[in-house]
Amino acid sequence: MRDTYHEELDSIGDGLVEMARLVGSAMGRATTALLDADLALAESVIAADEKVNSLHHELENRAIDLLARQQPVATDLRIVVTSLRMSADLERCGDLARHVAKVARLRYPAHAVPGDLHPIVLEMGQLAQRLVAKAGQVIATKDVEAALQLERDDDAMDELHRELFAHLIDDRWQHGIETGVDVTLIGRYYERFADHAVSVAKRVVFLVTGEHAGEYVPDDYPTDVDAPAGQ
Amino acid sequence: MRDTYHEELDSIGDGLVEMARLVGSAMGRATTALLDADLALAESVIAADEKVNSLHHELENRAIDLLARQQPVATDLRIVVTSLRMSADLERCGDLARHVAKVARLRYPAHAVPGDLHPIVLEMGQLAQRLVAKAGQVIATKDVEAALQLERDDDAMDELHRELFAHLIDDRWQHGIETGVDVTLIGRYYERFADHAVSVAKRVVFLVTGEHAGEYVPDDYPTDVDAPAGQ
Repeated sequence: MRDTYHEELDSIGDGLVEMARLVGSAMGRATTALLDADLALAESVIAADEKVNSLHHELENRAIDLLARQQPVATDLRIVVTSLRMSADLERCGDLARHVAKVARLRYPAHAVPGDLHPIVLEMGQLAQRLVAKAGQVIATKDVEAALQLERDDDAMDELHRELFAHLIDDRWQHGIETGVDVTLIGRYYERFADHAVSVAKRVVFLVTGEHAGEYVPDDYPTDVDAPAGQ
Repeated sequence: MRDTYHEELDSIGDGLVEMARLVGSAMGRATTALLDADLALAESVIAADEKVNSLHHELENRAIDLLARQQPVATDLRIVVTSLRMSADLERCGDLARHVAKVARLRYPAHAVPGDLHPIVLEMGQLAQRLVAKAGQVIATKDVEAALQLERDDDAMDELHRELFAHLIDDRWQHGIETGVDVTLIGRYYERFADHAVSVAKRVVFLVTGEHAGEYVPDDYPTDVDAPAGQ
């Protein structure tokens, strides 16, 4: 019975790794669709999010079913409850990739992102994809060191976000307010995606060590964009 | 033992109602701080979010402890797991109120919101506060009708959000890009806050009926701001 139990637990872990793969791929494609103004690719990202949502619901149901049938305690209980949260984080990552794709679709055939911002948006998209790929790896390996590394990688996203906002509030900004709104939201989507990937990794740290890996990094950077250092 | 169990379950529900009250008050104060450029009030909102976070962690721990000691099944299990999610929704509402307060603090002594947008931002703030107040009431009363009503109330928030973005992308916008960025983010904070309040109400519907109240309303409105109707 316990064997079946741990097999079921492992299969939930496999499902989470698959979710991480799906949302990472979605964010990579969404970024390409955004930078290339590729409507078909954007549409495919938007449509594919349904698969992430159904996997999320399936994993939730399996976890709750496991709680009911096996009534785990201690570490096993912690694993199941934490899996529910990781699934929610990854489902949210899928939503954010879909949001990026929707900006691309909305502005098509125009490019939502001005050419001079392509490099930084490309970097944010690639970093977001790497972060969630590492999060998936951390779920599979339970590697606490790698999990803590993710937090440091996220600092790079915050720096890119800072740069993006610096462009926005630069007096030389010449792309108008509508593009400013798009870029503001896009920047936030990438930054939230990264926060959720980091959150997944932190939950693994909690699982393995029983210790919370610091406080969740608040995603309120943008409002501090030109605040005094340390604020 | 079961009596103790249900008392503990009720006290978790009471904690959720208290969280809803705290984050509603926080969003009301944050909106006032934003519109009055009141630094002290903004600071107090930012500081008070710590109380919401600790209440969230306390409720999580109590719920997990309850799972371990009482090993509930069926409806009781559903209640505990759903409580974990409602607590996460409300904790997020607290973060969003804090974000609004941080915009006020960042722009102080200036006003982050231009005078012509005060009425709409005030309305969004008041509606956000009403929505989470109703969500708290729904948690306390398990009133499914009231819970479903919340979704309809949320349509009003989407409409206000639509109006706000219409101002932003209007050619007559004259407040510059930095204010445009602030207003874009503020609008998203209110809209996300409302989505989480609706999510809490939907979870109550699920608790009571065992049926999911429709799909979670995606928060990707802004990118559809000027998309064809029905998109």
